[in-house]
Amino acid sequence: MKLSHIEHIGIAVTNLEDAINFYEKVFGLTCYKIEEIADQKVRTAFFMVGQTKFELLQSTDPEGPIGKFIKKKGPGIHHIAFSVEKIEEQLMHAADMGITLIDCKPRKGAEGLDIAFLHPKTTYGVLIELCENKKM
Amino acid sequence: MKLSHIEHIGIAVTNLEDAINFYEKVFGLTCYKIEEIADQKVRTAFFMVGQTKFELLQSTDPEGPIGKFIKKKGPGIHHIAFSVEKIEEQLMHAADMGITLIDCKPRKGAEGLDIAFLHPKTTYGVLIELCENKKM
Repeated sequence: MKLSHIEHIGIAVTNLEDAINFYEKVFGLTCYKIEEIADQKVRTAFFMVGQTKFELLQSTDPEGPIGKFIKKKGPGIHHIAFSVEKIEEQLMHAADMGITLIDCKPRKGAEGLDIAFLHPKTTYGVLIELCENKKM
Repeated sequence: MKLSHIEHIGIAVTNLEDAINFYEKVFGLTCYKIEEIADQKVRTAFFMVGQTKFELLQSTDPEGPIGKFIKKKGPGIHHIAFSVEKIEEQLMHAADMGITLIDCKPRKGAEGLDIAFLHPKTTYGVLIELCENKKM
């Protein structure tokens, strides 16, 4: 697998507007987009830090993945997303290496990317997302 | 505050060699350095992913910060480090914005950087490190 860069870091928050205000005021970042992803039951806000996005995630449903994460662990860093090419091949490689796939084939994520998650029980506790921008 | 990029992401692991092997085999990354930081009671291993480092951290003492983190939360993503200039001024700015400083003044971290941590209770649950490379 060849990773070009860290595409984004996902941060679970309880209140999107408060967290946007925090990253803007304290770190001088600019939120360039707010997007609701119904499929993942989240509202997201995006910032750029160098070549990596900061993605804030607020749950729209306590039973969604971010709602459950916050209930269990509290707000904080949720996942890391690597930018890859040929995501389907990378998923096959990961499965061959013994990784459990949360998504056996890519689905559409924020900003129109093809995304798939790897199960943290098989990645040393780190929830890892693979992302491919097929429009590029 | 002006952030140029994400300097590194810190990952708490229970066995450094196993985790190095995992990131090399599955993601094709190359560990370019292993360094013990006695002050922080950790052994660290570094990889580059684009402009950001992946820093694996294994505790050398169950009572050190990584040892305590793993006992409480298990292995996984531990902190995010932003690259800044004039770190002393940024710490003053953060304190002025109501952030609790874990380090009121910078100390030496891995790779000779000046580093300081902000308390996650005042940063929406995210353990944030500021880093400055004064040799550049």
